[in-house]
Amino acid sequence: MINTLIEKIKKTNAPIVVGLDPMLAYTPGHIQKKAFAEYGETLAGAAEAVWQFNKGIVDAVCDLIPAVKPQIAMYEQFGIEGMKAFAKTVDYCKEKGLVVIGDVKRGDIGSTAVAYAVGHLGKVTVGSNSLYSFNEDFVTVNPYLGSDGVNPFIKVCKEEKKGIFVLVKTSNPSSGEFQDRLVEGKPLYEIVGEQVARWGEDCMGDSYSYVGAVVGATYPEQGKLLRKVMPKTFILVPGYGAQGGKGADLAHFFNEDGLGAIISSSRGIIAAYKQEKYASYGEEGYADAARAAVIDMREDIAGALA
Amino acid sequence: MINTLIEKIKKTNAPIVVGLDPMLAYTPGHIQKKAFAEYGETLAGAAEAVWQFNKGIVDAVCDLIPAVKPQIAMYEQFGIEGMKAFAKTVDYCKEKGLVVIGDVKRGDIGSTAVAYAVGHLGKVTVGSNSLYSFNEDFVTVNPYLGSDGVNPFIKVCKEEKKGIFVLVKTSNPSSGEFQDRLVEGKPLYEIVGEQVARWGEDCMGDSYSYVGAVVGATYPEQGKLLRKVMPKTFILVPGYGAQGGKGADLAHFFNEDGLGAIISSSRGIIAAYKQEKYASYGEEGYADAARAAVIDMREDIAGALA
Repeated sequence: MINTLIEKIKKTNAPIVVGLDPMLAYTPGHIQKKAFAEYGETLAGAAEAVWQFNKGIVDAVCDLIPAVKPQIAMYEQFGIEGMKAFAKTVDYCKEKGLVVIGDVKRGDIGSTAVAYAVGHLGKVTVGSNSLYSFNEDFVTVNPYLGSDGVNPFIKVCKEEKKGIFVLVKTSNPSSGEFQDRLVEGKPLYEIVGEQVARWGEDCMGDSYSYVGAVVGATYPEQGKLLRKVMPKTFILVPGYGAQGGKGADLAHFFNEDGLGAIISSSRGIIAAYKQEKYASYGEEGYADAARAAVIDMREDIAGALA
Repeated sequence: MINTLIEKIKKTNAPIVVGLDPMLAYTPGHIQKKAFAEYGETLAGAAEAVWQFNKGIVDAVCDLIPAVKPQIAMYEQFGIEGMKAFAKTVDYCKEKGLVVIGDVKRGDIGSTAVAYAVGHLGKVTVGSNSLYSFNEDFVTVNPYLGSDGVNPFIKVCKEEKKGIFVLVKTSNPSSGEFQDRLVEGKPLYEIVGEQVARWGEDCMGDSYSYVGAVVGATYPEQGKLLRKVMPKTFILVPGYGAQGGKGADLAHFFNEDGLGAIISSSRGIIAAYKQEKYASYGEEGYADAARAAVIDMREDIAGALA
């Protein structure tokens, strides 16, 4: 799947993943109104609004981008109905030819980690059947529990030709509280990065590993260091746009082959119509605003890499 | 809710939480057969088997224990149908008067952490309604992302009088890979423990904080240290029984008031009928075997604390 992701990045010339993290407050009034008319102001109504919103975005941008990243929390908050919207979104994006990175940040051990891995990337066994559950292409994984929490994902990735992105240095202001603490002179994120590189050695695609990393765009200096520590690791870079990361900050996340990173933007794309710059599209034109924002983001990144 | 948990521990004289982590392989043949007859060897069939299995366990042990800890991964692996079984299990346990600790190990930032917090502990807003989704009493939280990932949970805990248990030192063999790394001479788990104590200061119940910690029974020396670092923190202790933790190892997780810890056992209770010791109950008697195992565990812990 890492090979597929790279092919799609080359084809679209856009190392961009659109985060499908729809807060209900992002969904335009006409979508909410229709969903609530059908299902009431219920969890099912919220899930319907989120799903219709996503569908509009995906239809508008799917030819421009290689991948999407649905953030499962935004669906899980609406309970079972929300999870149905998550599953529909994953399936729809795959139908549209997009690589789906499930931003689930799961992390547990032993049989529990196996359950997350098969539930999101592989197949569960029920009697004599092997069945897919959520069936994303990649998921994000939290490393705090060590190899016991990561190896079950790697095993499933090998079987299914799928992949993971392990949190290394996250984009948020307080990420340094633990991740920056110095261990024998090195920050913890570097130690985690070294381990990610080791985990990845044994599961290589053509040029990059199935085991990727998450490093926030808001920490460009750390990104520069981690790029060297993990040369064969694909880096998923959140924090661009709404969180403050700029195109110019991104160059060091890439290798000299022009590859090795994929930049994520969520609010900056899916709620673009709320920005002054794209306000002329109006609520009704939210999907076209998202398309315009993707095109601008592609140019910003191309400029940074030139 | 921490006050409620403590009351129930005192009433049952059992600082025990039963982990409802049903692998399909734990469910006796007669339960699987009935579920598959009704729903086929499908995700719905698996979810039904898990739910019926849980119901039997809960009915058999609910008068003996204060709390249960469903591990969401074991449900999530079966997709939407599995999540329905999770929700049914949570609701049923609450009906039976049990405190429900959702073992979800979520960890994310900002609006995403808010989504997890309201989805599992609080209420989501849909139009003019505020609605519960999964509605556990406590959840487990991963600290790797720092305060940005924990504060949204704390906010909801204050509003809802609920609580969290933050991963500090996990029970698995490789937990030391990152958690034991020395930061200025202190292991990272101690740094995290200090931060958990700080997070908890501002949300105190009568004698313990709403912000608890997870420390594995398999690391008794570390438990002894962390007990001192976090004197007002309730500690959720996994790893007893099947993972190798023994009653004698547990004494140092408790304070001198005889409180401050709740010991979790999953396989050791719910799959007790598979152990030689409880084999005479047979598959059909799996729930009675679980009851016997709870009584033995209660005695083992009482002996260790005496």
